[in-house]
Amino acid sequence: MILSLYPGATIEYVKAHQGYLKKGAFVIDCCGVKEAVCAEIQPIAAEQGFAYVGGHPMAGIEFSGFKYSQNDLFKHASMILTPQTDMSIQDMDLLKKLWLSLGFNHVQISTPTEHDRMIAFTSQLPHVLSSAYIKSSSSFKHKGYSAGSYKDLSRVAKLNESMWTELFMLNRDNLVEEIDGVIDRLLQYRDAIKKGNEKKLWDLLHEGTERKTLIDG
Amino acid sequence: MILSLYPGATIEYVKAHQGYLKKGAFVIDCCGVKEAVCAEIQPIAAEQGFAYVGGHPMAGIEFSGFKYSQNDLFKHASMILTPQTDMSIQDMDLLKKLWLSLGFNHVQISTPTEHDRMIAFTSQLPHVLSSAYIKSSSSFKHKGYSAGSYKDLSRVAKLNESMWTELFMLNRDNLVEEIDGVIDRLLQYRDAIKKGNEKKLWDLLHEGTERKTLIDG
Repeated sequence: MILSLYPGATIEYVKAHQGYLKKGAFVIDCCGVKEAVCAEIQPIAAEQGFAYVGGHPMAGIEFSGFKYSQNDLFKHASMILTPQTDMSIQDMDLLKKLWLSLGFNHVQISTPTEHDRMIAFTSQLPHVLSSAYIKSSSSFKHKGYSAGSYKDLSRVAKLNESMWTELFMLNRDNLVEEIDGVIDRLLQYRDAIKKGNEKKLWDLLHEGTERKTLIDG
Repeated sequence: MILSLYPGATIEYVKAHQGYLKKGAFVIDCCGVKEAVCAEIQPIAAEQGFAYVGGHPMAGIEFSGFKYSQNDLFKHASMILTPQTDMSIQDMDLLKKLWLSLGFNHVQISTPTEHDRMIAFTSQLPHVLSSAYIKSSSSFKHKGYSAGSYKDLSRVAKLNESMWTELFMLNRDNLVEEIDGVIDRLLQYRDAIKKGNEKKLWDLLHEGTERKTLIDG
């Protein structure tokens, strides 16, 4: 069974229906945070005898609802799974095959803790940055002055406020750490520019180029 | 004549070759900042009798060099022009047609001051944000945990350090103002998350969604 609900609703659903879940069945959620969800569902799974696996499909767009569905949304995407440590290799293999058959090209096995730390950077921080970016008073007049970098930076400013509020609140420590980090780094660029320190600015930009090249080629 | 050099090199080129420029000729530069460049070239143009027009093609990629050239780079892009105020309507019309014939779908007429203020937001700030974003220690392990929002936010972290250092330094006041603004806004999200203030966080995210929807549909 694949549950595709918000975190709170996922937990409520499992609690309410736990007596009807078949023993031995795989139950996989699709929430964007894992610690808060897995901590609630794992004990229920142990008690009721179904096999619970945390899941997070790394694919999404800034629109929601059936009319925006895409039949290739999962193509070349990564599916993150946070299985309980006692899951058998055979069961894991079956699960991997399930997601790969849906179009995903990678199944990332992780722990809830590692998942939440990584997702704060790869997904949550971009949404915060994009939302903060678009609110510059200059944004009203961007047309004619903008191109790819504006488009990329502003894309996910349009988001589902209710879903993201819930996700952010369930990953507060990790996300605050990422926001603090990016603010600290922004202040370095800001100070170098303010002071006219070309050497320092060049170094800061060069470090960014090196990092991006190192990790993404 | 279209000059496609860095700002300092553009000014040096015009100074060195001003005696060879035909009277009445159109001379257009392609620098990413306009006040610093136009202020130097306009007096030379007035003295030598050529028609100088500041230009900035709003199209680019994070790679440079001939092997990365794209024959559709300017397609659907905007060309910004900052002509001198005494240019005739006939000449402006000719110039517009020139750029539209190269594939641009819009010619934005502006002033050097307005251009530099807008570009600080639409182009320079995204490069600073992307560079600061990618330097999180989490970025090393992003694979398997990332999707579109990571890709969009990190794309222009790979940049030409020398060119962007020069461009940022020639637009310091505007860019510092934009960076300060985004840091102020990031602190609002950070504080709401840190304090667990769901209502405030929802409002902040909602404002971003509203702004993005208002300006880009």
